Amino acid sequence: MKIQLAIDRVSIEEAIDIIEKTASYVDIIEIGTSLIKDFGLESIRKIKQKFPHNIILADIKTIDEAEYEFEAAYKAGADIVTVMGVASLETIKICKKVANKYDKEYMIDLLETSQEKQETLKQFNDAILCVHLPSDMGGKGLEALIDSVLIELSDFPNLAVAGGVSISNINSIKKANFQIVIIGGAITKQENIGAMAKKFKMLVEG
Amino acid sequence: MKIQLAIDRVSIEEAIDIIEKTASYVDIIEIGTSLIKDFGLESIRKIKQKFPHNIILADIKTIDEAEYEFEAAYKAGADIVTVMGVASLETIKICKKVANKYDKEYMIDLLETSQEKQETLKQFNDAILCVHLPSDMGGKGLEALIDSVLIELSDFPNLAVAGGVSISNINSIKKANFQIVIIGGAITKQENIGAMAKKFKMLVEG
Repeated sequence: MKIQLAIDRVSIEEAIDIIEKTASYVDIIEIGTSLIKDFGLESIRKIKQKFPHNIILADIKTIDEAEYEFEAAYKAGADIVTVMGVASLETIKICKKVANKYDKEYMIDLLETSQEKQETLKQFNDAILCVHLPSDMGGKGLEALIDSVLIELSDFPNLAVAGGVSISNINSIKKANFQIVIIGGAITKQENIGAMAKKFKMLVEG
Repeated sequence: MKIQLAIDRVSIEEAIDIIEKTASYVDIIEIGTSLIKDFGLESIRKIKQKFPHNIILADIKTIDEAEYEFEAAYKAGADIVTVMGVASLETIKICKKVANKYDKEYMIDLLETSQEKQETLKQFNDAILCVHLPSDMGGKGLEALIDSVLIELSDFPNLAVAGGVSISNINSIKKANFQIVIIGGAITKQENIGAMAKKFKMLVEG
């Protein structure tokens, strides 16, 4: 299982500092939605420039204007870009087309998608589907969400999980066989960021 | 009916130029999602600084992390901030709370919401509900969308409409009795921006 480190609610300089401390322990660096909305594409450009060999995910949460947003994010240096699963199928198809054009990856965020919509999204079999508990729920219900989603999506080739991942639930997540676990505050808001990233890496690999 | 001018896919300087040419004919200036995602909060700050007496809507399309995003947008100078109707009810409730705290307005974007969700959203009776055809549909189906939504929402106090509004459908929109019509490229992508804004104002008031 790969670790994706979500970086949010900090300046670009602080983000770079966090990445320097954790890069050896994580597989994907996520430029969180808050960085994009606070600082724009500059956040992607500066971080990719500083870490050209790392995989950078830009969590731009596209829900419309897919071609414009996806083109802009890939051009700024993103390797993986996100679209909301609640977007129209037309929007998601455009995201796939742009991703394929750039030979890059895309992630479909399942936040608030219905079971019916999740079923439809299986057609995007080159995407990463991300099971996502809203931050606004404060991490409550992640394990129940995982159980319910996995019944529907367990055969999907590339699944990620996000929202309230912590030391206390990482083992349940590991058992559920996701390809990517997305960890945010449980690493970035801790005193010793590097040590915590290392601890998660050991738990995931152990 | 008020006119909201949506400004997208330009630099902040070009946005300021567009606003200077159109401000006398429009009621609300929308800083489009593309400006937020391209340039961050700086787009809101610079435009509000330049036009402190105009009503500025920041189309940040919140779908999670509501408190952080809404606080940031109001602090940057927005008078109205947007949240997606497809977000969780918890998320939208937080948006309402932050809007009320700042004594500012908020708009709920109905893009891709189900009829059932629209019914639930009526509880947010101090919000502006925005009937929204995705840009990715290229303006096709706006009139049908309006008809279907208005059956459900005609009694809602504050309704806006967006997505492919043009000279050719402005009269149907006028008949449908929206409080706000959101116009983008039909003004901003025309040769004489000021004249086109004036024409829409006359059509809306005529």
